[in-house]
Amino acid sequence: MSTAGPVFNHEDFISDRSKNRKINHFWKSVPALDNPHPDPIQLIGGQPNHGFFPVESATVELRDKPFSPSSTAIFNIEAEPSDSTKLGIKDAFQYSEDAGLEPLREQIREIVKRVVKPISPDWEISCTQGGSDGIMKVFDIIINPGDVVLFEEFTFTPVLSLLKEKGGIPIPIKLENCFSSSPSLDYADELTNLLENWSTIHPGLPTPKILYTIPSGHNPLGLAKSIKTKQRVYDLATKYNFLILEDEPYAYLSFTKSDEEPNFSLSNDEFLASIRPSYLTIDTVGRVIRTETFSKVFSPGLRLGFCVLNKAFFKNFTDSFRVYNKGPSGYSQLFVNNTINQLGGVEGWIHWIIQVRNEYLKRKNAFVNALKTSKAHENGYLTVIDPDCGMFVSVILNVQNHKLFNGDNIDEVVDLLYANAAQNGFLAVLGRNMTVDKEFSRERSNFLRCAISYASSSDVLIEAAERLSTSLLQSFNN
Amino acid sequence: MSTAGPVFNHEDFISDRSKNRKINHFWKSVPALDNPHPDPIQLIGGQPNHGFFPVESATVELRDKPFSPSSTAIFNIEAEPSDSTKLGIKDAFQYSEDAGLEPLREQIREIVKRVVKPISPDWEISCTQGGSDGIMKVFDIIINPGDVVLFEEFTFTPVLSLLKEKGGIPIPIKLENCFSSSPSLDYADELTNLLENWSTIHPGLPTPKILYTIPSGHNPLGLAKSIKTKQRVYDLATKYNFLILEDEPYAYLSFTKSDEEPNFSLSNDEFLASIRPSYLTIDTVGRVIRTETFSKVFSPGLRLGFCVLNKAFFKNFTDSFRVYNKGPSGYSQLFVNNTINQLGGVEGWIHWIIQVRNEYLKRKNAFVNALKTSKAHENGYLTVIDPDCGMFVSVILNVQNHKLFNGDNIDEVVDLLYANAAQNGFLAVLGRNMTVDKEFSRERSNFLRCAISYASSSDVLIEAAERLSTSLLQSFNN
Repeated sequence: MSTAGPVFNHEDFISDRSKNRKINHFWKSVPALDNPHPDPIQLIGGQPNHGFFPVESATVELRDKPFSPSSTAIFNIEAEPSDSTKLGIKDAFQYSEDAGLEPLREQIREIVKRVVKPISPDWEISCTQGGSDGIMKVFDIIINPGDVVLFEEFTFTPVLSLLKEKGGIPIPIKLENCFSSSPSLDYADELTNLLENWSTIHPGLPTPKILYTIPSGHNPLGLAKSIKTKQRVYDLATKYNFLILEDEPYAYLSFTKSDEEPNFSLSNDEFLASIRPSYLTIDTVGRVIRTETFSKVFSPGLRLGFCVLNKAFFKNFTDSFRVYNKGPSGYSQLFVNNTINQLGGVEGWIHWIIQVRNEYLKRKNAFVNALKTSKAHENGYLTVIDPDCGMFVSVILNVQNHKLFNGDNIDEVVDLLYANAAQNGFLAVLGRNMTVDKEFSRERSNFLRCAISYASSSDVLIEAAERLSTSLLQSFNN
Repeated sequence: MSTAGPVFNHEDFISDRSKNRKINHFWKSVPALDNPHPDPIQLIGGQPNHGFFPVESATVELRDKPFSPSSTAIFNIEAEPSDSTKLGIKDAFQYSEDAGLEPLREQIREIVKRVVKPISPDWEISCTQGGSDGIMKVFDIIINPGDVVLFEEFTFTPVLSLLKEKGGIPIPIKLENCFSSSPSLDYADELTNLLENWSTIHPGLPTPKILYTIPSGHNPLGLAKSIKTKQRVYDLATKYNFLILEDEPYAYLSFTKSDEEPNFSLSNDEFLASIRPSYLTIDTVGRVIRTETFSKVFSPGLRLGFCVLNKAFFKNFTDSFRVYNKGPSGYSQLFVNNTINQLGGVEGWIHWIIQVRNEYLKRKNAFVNALKTSKAHENGYLTVIDPDCGMFVSVILNVQNHKLFNGDNIDEVVDLLYANAAQNGFLAVLGRNMTVDKEFSRERSNFLRCAISYASSSDVLIEAAERLSTSLLQSFNN
């Protein structure tokens, strides 16, 4: 059921900072002529001719699949490729539009159509310098000092620094269901209650302007929001008139059920059907903005991602590039564009992603199984949140079973357990370091976020689980 | 003669914005242990193992010199090069420190030592995403709202947008000497007068906190500051206690005298002796910050540059990366690092730069000569500012010789002349679009900035000069 809300107007959401920005484009000063010269000589911009660039050409070999040393796909980097869907040195190594080079933007539009499927026709994409850059720019164009942003109480905390810089106020949403016996990212009831009682719970604060969410492969909790929860949250966004920023670095690393085994012959259609639908599939008016990154499915060093947003936000978004940083590296854009191209376009790219995702599934299974069959688990010292998606497995440390726990010293007991785990050679991230508000979330922060991405193999993860188990047995039995 | 000023304290110059910034490094939460595990398993960061990266290897061919199609130097991009001065896929395609990857930073330090020669020992370098990114971050860590920044009255105007974003106030310094019969960027007298009479000329404004200058190959005027002028300006900076930000995108494209011919066998030492000394060669206390870019000597699409700054500013500078954009693309860093490496390190890199610079000199000579021997020049319709350095040639339009000029309509007559030049297929940038304050500079803004960088050859520049001349003859004689 959709709830009718106030009339939605994109302009109402643009920050004063962004509205008042005047960008100096001194080089765009070509006189308007009735009958312009057919072949003018351009002495306007300070672009060096590409003949000055030291790179003449290159050849790039692609892996057949993750971790495979064999390579059958090769692409050449040429000065000016005859195929206009490829990028060459002349364009990619030159100054270019901040929103990205057109061949890559077109590939990304195709990916968005095939994978994300926005139902509003008025969307556009802009490249970014990765996920955080996209989020920073969304805050830049939306947040006035004093504006409120809703966050899941545990979140990717560097985003809080981005918000603080714009003067925004973060307010956490409780995630109790994540810690229940059947963990889920369904916080629609919590959010309803929060919004219905906003002025009582947060007296003096304006109602929220935007919700920041990591709906798939939540960081740190690894869970994914169902479409049913999304519909309820979206209805609340309509009723209370706020935007939704869905940050989806992990959306493609999607697992369908806890006992799923990797299937390397999964078809693209089967895979896409298994991915959680975006908020954009229910967004009719353009109140949803999506950020993605190539960091997790290609490589982080690219500093390359993209943002899907309503056309009404596009100019403000790209103006931000002019006052913070320009667009992403053309070298990065070339590598991504020509790789996707070489793999056969969107379908080939999805096939690559399936291989990446299967590798993560293999790791997830190995690590979760090792934890669940561990002695520490058997003794009730830990609980695993089996992730729906992504690269993080959160392990709850059952401090209430520890003899030093007195109902009030959760941080202390967690520190004790984690220090001993570290002593045993197990390093992860403390749950409380990923809170919007430590106090607000203290009772639920007795977990460790474990990234399964960096280890060289599943065996290392199994060894890590054993180390954790050993250390907990020591700590609890001591 | 050095003038003693107030005691210099870097901390006094840091903006409140930067001082108050708390950066969230949730992943840096490793417990302090007396006797840490010798081989801990890292489940902290969300870095994908490099086995997930689709690129297996690459081979890059370098041009022998600018515009040459031949290539004898080749480097390989490997996963983990055995030579630690090279960058490989494992590190460069991964998340990395915002200040840049260490092999590249080390190369840059070597370049700075050999070319820039700072005399204060307390300098450090940070990579940036290009010149503008470096400038933005300098303003970020220095400028509080209401702080004053001195600018040369004609400047690279996008920098004004960067400053406005931080709330700074730009104040222009008059550049009358640039338009004299022997053009020079010596504005020390002007600046002395401005500072001595600051409270009369700019009542209510605080004294300047920093001077932004493009000392070599000034944009748009093409002139270079002598070391004598720099010493005088530096003494003023000491006396009035402000910083100097020297922005040097063009420093390497340095010409020694107006009739110099390209010399492709110039030795590195001869070339370096011809480059104008940096403010850092006279800066004893660390009040000078230098920004450079690889855009002009390598390629703009890199979005890569660096900043030389006192160590006392370093942490604030790199903290800025966390709230605006992370460090530069590792792909870009790899290309630059391994190219410099392949060319033979710093000396080989300088040799490459000499070739680039000679190509610019050739273009500069062709264009300036074509203008100076043109009919329009002969008739006194234009005056050329023969550049000392860089990629811009400014052409003064002698509007006072035009019959429609009434002493008061300079913009109107310039527009008329430029529209006709455009009609004849000549496009450049209007001087008045590159002013800090149009009114302040109106009398000196009757020039066009012509970039000699983008044309495919000197012949195109000669043709451009002819078109301009033809159009001016039409306009003046009509």
